[in-house]
Amino acid sequence: MQPVPEEQEGRDPAAVPHKARGLSRRSLMGIFGITGATATLGVAGYAGVSQLTKPAPTPTVETEQVQASDVVAFDGIHQAGIATPAQSNVVLTAYDVAGTAGKAEIAAVMKAWTLAGRALTTGSSMEGDPDISTGSSTASLSITVGVGATLVEKIKAQRPGALVDLPAFAGDQIDPLRSGGDLVVQLCADDPLVLAQADRVLTRLARGILRVRWQEQGFGSTGARKDGRTGRNLMGQLDGTNNVTTSALAKAGPIWVSDDGPAWLAGGSYLVVRRIRMLTEQWDQTNKGQQERVIGRTKDTGAPLGSKLESDFVDLEAKNPDGSLTIPADSHVRLAKPASSAENMMRRGYSYRGAVLPDGSVDQGLLFLAFQKDPSTSFIPVQQRLAAHDALERFTLTTSSGVFAILPGVSAESDWLGSALFS
Amino acid sequence: MQPVPEEQEGRDPAAVPHKARGLSRRSLMGIFGITGATATLGVAGYAGVSQLTKPAPTPTVETEQVQASDVVAFDGIHQAGIATPAQSNVVLTAYDVAGTAGKAEIAAVMKAWTLAGRALTTGSSMEGDPDISTGSSTASLSITVGVGATLVEKIKAQRPGALVDLPAFAGDQIDPLRSGGDLVVQLCADDPLVLAQADRVLTRLARGILRVRWQEQGFGSTGARKDGRTGRNLMGQLDGTNNVTTSALAKAGPIWVSDDGPAWLAGGSYLVVRRIRMLTEQWDQTNKGQQERVIGRTKDTGAPLGSKLESDFVDLEAKNPDGSLTIPADSHVRLAKPASSAENMMRRGYSYRGAVLPDGSVDQGLLFLAFQKDPSTSFIPVQQRLAAHDALERFTLTTSSGVFAILPGVSAESDWLGSALFS
Repeated sequence: MQPVPEEQEGRDPAAVPHKARGLSRRSLMGIFGITGATATLGVAGYAGVSQLTKPAPTPTVETEQVQASDVVAFDGIHQAGIATPAQSNVVLTAYDVAGTAGKAEIAAVMKAWTLAGRALTTGSSMEGDPDISTGSSTASLSITVGVGATLVEKIKAQRPGALVDLPAFAGDQIDPLRSGGDLVVQLCADDPLVLAQADRVLTRLARGILRVRWQEQGFGSTGARKDGRTGRNLMGQLDGTNNVTTSALAKAGPIWVSDDGPAWLAGGSYLVVRRIRMLTEQWDQTNKGQQERVIGRTKDTGAPLGSKLESDFVDLEAKNPDGSLTIPADSHVRLAKPASSAENMMRRGYSYRGAVLPDGSVDQGLLFLAFQKDPSTSFIPVQQRLAAHDALERFTLTTSSGVFAILPGVSAESDWLGSALFS
Repeated sequence: MQPVPEEQEGRDPAAVPHKARGLSRRSLMGIFGITGATATLGVAGYAGVSQLTKPAPTPTVETEQVQASDVVAFDGIHQAGIATPAQSNVVLTAYDVAGTAGKAEIAAVMKAWTLAGRALTTGSSMEGDPDISTGSSTASLSITVGVGATLVEKIKAQRPGALVDLPAFAGDQIDPLRSGGDLVVQLCADDPLVLAQADRVLTRLARGILRVRWQEQGFGSTGARKDGRTGRNLMGQLDGTNNVTTSALAKAGPIWVSDDGPAWLAGGSYLVVRRIRMLTEQWDQTNKGQQERVIGRTKDTGAPLGSKLESDFVDLEAKNPDGSLTIPADSHVRLAKPASSAENMMRRGYSYRGAVLPDGSVDQGLLFLAFQKDPSTSFIPVQQRLAAHDALERFTLTTSSGVFAILPGVSAESDWLGSALFS
């Protein structure tokens, strides 16, 4: 396969939208055809699956113009936005199927979203695009789509055992209208204007079929970032240390559903969403020493108590000279530590700041997003430990919640998101 | 005056907080003492007033460590955050005076905010700082404080004639609980985590005296940015072209109150806040040509219709071959154009995205912020024209509103915000 010459408007009318948006974006038009070259331009590890199956073309002038660092490939075995580096901002939207719309209508939305996803992530223009970020980069936009148990039941598909309803955890105060949903779309990018545009495009393409149920916005990723640093959450902790890592290119891995799920989910994952309010007024009244004992790590460096570096091993057996545990029995890091690899989750959380609450404080905290192979063996047992014993629970309040089956990636140009579920 | 050696914890206990936050911030400790040097490091045009009155020190190793591009001087004739370059994010908070608190209590808050402002903007640690952005840069944080007419009346000061109540404009649907307020604080920075920290510090210092009335968050400045580019708003327009410019160092200028206001406001300004929802679903259904006639500028380049460049003169007399006006009679650019210099405003708006509305659309739009010498001769007549005739009004809905007198800057180390009003 050869790169698309700049004059040509795209190699496949179904896959590449009809017109370039401007000079700065024109050079991105050929991205789908030159994934072999993009790997050498810095997106190795999160280029599309076509990189694996097609010979790398000889780089040309066009490939040098591609702003590869601003493009996260939409196509792949797995959807982007999971194992790809976390961008600075997120918009998370849950949709419900409107009225009597059925499988065929949802399939039409999924096909449209697939084409739109390819266009938006490469900065190509498309019919119906409100064109609000003209001249901006694509800001590493990623689009990740999942389905809730309610949708699986509506279309009478087999509900996977791992697509559980979360149990009620002690201390939760869940707002049902801000929880759940038939579908979820996670949009991540390094520019909130690009997110606003993508959100408008996808919502508009679903008009009459899907209705927005809730939407959350976040900033300051606490997941695995491009710069390799761990972000701080709104309690000031380094959040995301010892995260699970996996490749977006590997078929199997700690968070991917393989043969153990239904066929329509092979290559997918599960996303648990929790909107965790931080009771910052109470937290800010504790001193740093107290905060560090609650977390089990030092605030400045993120090192486990008794250690020096963030990356140091969390030694749960270590004792102080007086015989007490160095990492307290009720500390968050102790209780959150996976008891086995079955509890592994890839966290990709963001901070959120929302409305002023009736008491005059600001609703703010963590939009906890965690991808996993099976919530019933990972998130649920971990959260049951935390809800019962974690010293951090006194400073948080979870107000919304959701579990979604994240669809496999689209790995052929004729394919579309959820084709195996909605066909 | 010599820069503060790194070992020394600050030259003036009143002006410089007690302890450095970490290595990367430690080098910023001496910033107040080395403003002469910072000017050569890239903050010329918005360094503090002490630059004007004190001899420049010889640069030393310490001054080279100062990340001057991340620091906007808190001290100056005028407050920062007005004529200083617009950062990427804003948090705007209105407070009401709680219960029976009077002038003395408010003065105490203002003194505490002044010290906190110096500490936060230079990345120095201080008592009561929740320390949530340790290791981050100060992200050009600016802090700008104003007072509403209700506060001026509560403390029985003379209400300036220009501190008007806005009239009801046709089409507005104002939520009074999300409007007005006794005080306003505009926090701007290039990192929302830094804004969250500053907001927490200031609100905590005011506990028991000021209560949060409302808070808005914005991104994607449409004001005069550091990079010199004009930002796009959520309609996709380049927003902020032909903005009024002035110097943060000049005593007088198009937006500064001088001898024409009360003495406590000399060097201050007025801020008009309008939360303008964009009816994006309706807007996105118009085509680009219609949008350009509504605005009077081309969407891609921002050039006035009939011209080529964003910076081209807006020729309101120009006609099409058929004799019609090139820039339509009801276009936004025609009606918004100042009829005289008295109508000049410095716009510093941000995009906002908020809650999902009952109809399933997302509340999003422009947080219009405009600084001016006198709203009764600038914002009010301009908005009356727009409300009556502007084609853009069909696509917007203003839901909250406020006018604040922005206090003069603090231009001596012993001085504090509002000293002339609250003493």
